[in-house]
Amino acid sequence: MEIAIDLAKRGRGWVNPNPLVGAVIVKDDVIIGSGYHEKYGGLHAERNALAACNESPVGATLYVTLEPCCHYGNTPPCTEAIIESGINQVIIGATDPNPLVGGKGIEILRQQGITVITGAQEEACQELNTIFFHYIKTKTPYVLMKYAMTLDGKIATRTGKSKWITGEAARNAVHQTRNEVMGIMVGVNTILQDDPQLTCRIEGGRNPIRIICDTYLRTPLTAQVVTSARKIPTYLATCSQDQQKIKRFEIMGCRILKSAKVGEHLDLRELMVRLGQEGIDSILLEGGGTLNFSALKSGIVSKLQVYLAPKIFGGAAAKTPVEGLGLADPAEAFQFTDRKIKIFGDDICLEYTKR
Amino acid sequence: MEIAIDLAKRGRGWVNPNPLVGAVIVKDDVIIGSGYHEKYGGLHAERNALAACNESPVGATLYVTLEPCCHYGNTPPCTEAIIESGINQVIIGATDPNPLVGGKGIEILRQQGITVITGAQEEACQELNTIFFHYIKTKTPYVLMKYAMTLDGKIATRTGKSKWITGEAARNAVHQTRNEVMGIMVGVNTILQDDPQLTCRIEGGRNPIRIICDTYLRTPLTAQVVTSARKIPTYLATCSQDQQKIKRFEIMGCRILKSAKVGEHLDLRELMVRLGQEGIDSILLEGGGTLNFSALKSGIVSKLQVYLAPKIFGGAAAKTPVEGLGLADPAEAFQFTDRKIKIFGDDICLEYTKR
Repeated sequence: MEIAIDLAKRGRGWVNPNPLVGAVIVKDDVIIGSGYHEKYGGLHAERNALAACNESPVGATLYVTLEPCCHYGNTPPCTEAIIESGINQVIIGATDPNPLVGGKGIEILRQQGITVITGAQEEACQELNTIFFHYIKTKTPYVLMKYAMTLDGKIATRTGKSKWITGEAARNAVHQTRNEVMGIMVGVNTILQDDPQLTCRIEGGRNPIRIICDTYLRTPLTAQVVTSARKIPTYLATCSQDQQKIKRFEIMGCRILKSAKVGEHLDLRELMVRLGQEGIDSILLEGGGTLNFSALKSGIVSKLQVYLAPKIFGGAAAKTPVEGLGLADPAEAFQFTDRKIKIFGDDICLEYTKR
Repeated sequence: MEIAIDLAKRGRGWVNPNPLVGAVIVKDDVIIGSGYHEKYGGLHAERNALAACNESPVGATLYVTLEPCCHYGNTPPCTEAIIESGINQVIIGATDPNPLVGGKGIEILRQQGITVITGAQEEACQELNTIFFHYIKTKTPYVLMKYAMTLDGKIATRTGKSKWITGEAARNAVHQTRNEVMGIMVGVNTILQDDPQLTCRIEGGRNPIRIICDTYLRTPLTAQVVTSARKIPTYLATCSQDQQKIKRFEIMGCRILKSAKVGEHLDLRELMVRLGQEGIDSILLEGGGTLNFSALKSGIVSKLQVYLAPKIFGGAAAKTPVEGLGLADPAEAFQFTDRKIKIFGDDICLEYTKR
């Protein structure tokens, strides 16, 4: 199963919104075939593993990180392929929360006399597909809020300078994350302040769709995310009704997502439903303080990554990662759990799940 | 030597400004005596170990965490006691940076034909006395800056509430630290905001001297640190020349340290020299943002402890741990090194040395 998990991970960044799946076929204690879901629209892991077998899988055991599908999607059901192959035992990591599968895959295999064992390395298999499970259940993207700050909680100096807070290893890790998500989201203030590209700058990496939260459509037409929108998709979520302005962005290749307003900000919950409908299963939120607070307040954040650099900027006027109005009482604080500490040279990354 | 180090630690909070020292006497592979420096003014570790011997130390080996002293202080030199005892081998952890000792202890022992081996577990032995080594070299207190903040760098909510950020385990650790330092320092804003006692609330603990940085003498006469000044020493460092006001504090039992002014703040470097002269070897700085920035700027901080709670307050107006004017350029940032990560339940503590 560990081999299957490692294989599954190779699909990262390429299979969304499908799950990462790895499969290993074993006969007489020898691996006779293995495979993983390599690319959205391509063969599932089980079929890749079967195709890779160097001898007949009749009587073999299949290890698969996720319950095999039993419905027709882009490809015919994997349960069929397993039954036809003559495999007589299937060991499953995580069951599929997809309502179209949901235990039915297991049932079908058992009806055919195949021994099915579930729960093998279940936690690791589930963790593999946190994004997929969230998306399949909620139909909205899994939002990972990320920021880099100093030991005194600053994301820039008092003059607004933020290059750089963390070192190269931490910045590379962020680009790795950008490669694994379907969308990257920032607020208009970040565009105005830094004019970022929001691309994935690792070799062979894939650029996420850029989503700009811009209530009043203040993004300049000269911003890099706009001028490069024909090459890398850029979505502008806005409450603006200014058709002329909207037209100009559309001509540049941007997509406009008209959003309702909640207070002074656009309705992030509605935006998430909309992005979910577009097939966006995951978003890296690299917002500034205003957007980050709105995102937490609206309850769309599932995960938090705090990069911490061993330095202090000071400054009562220096920006912090979560601003907005803020909460009044410590008891109301947004709470996080499942701490993980990762080391990147001199920097560390604290990872939490939203409670 | 490990046993000697553990013994040395038992003196924490009681020996300042003396060093923590542990000693173990071994003969024929058996420990025949051990001891540590228990209390300021009391016997040194070597003499305690000798006194504890259950057989003659003639021909035995002494393990001691710090180079034995060779000068007359509160007690006669330990080198004399060692020579008289008939011990013929001494194994030393750290050499003494005290100019009154500085290798002379080793020299004297060797002149008497005793074999001396140095550098045993040197790093651990040195770490034991970071404070002592700093104090003996600089004649100023070792300043440990400590704060507790949320994952978004806030030390209070937008309404100023800070009870509680961290959980019980982390708060207990802070009281443990208060027990180990000679002084605790805050700014007047903390007094005005929280009216703290700044005591050590662990059983058998010792209260540090309370030092309030109060440039304009704005501390209320009703503040807890003032009303309890007869029981627990309170020093007010101020630039105020208001003799009447000063008199009132003195009547309450406070000690006034008149300080020069640097810009808008009192001269912290001068204050440290002054406190060093008073024999204060260590200060826990639990300042707010203004004092913390001044302390970093003036270069008096040696160590940093950041307690991090897994929660977010948000708020552009919420206070952060280091404020003041702040630095303009990320390249100028105050830098920290020697990261240590400690876990206290849901909270963590990041410990660094100032670079």
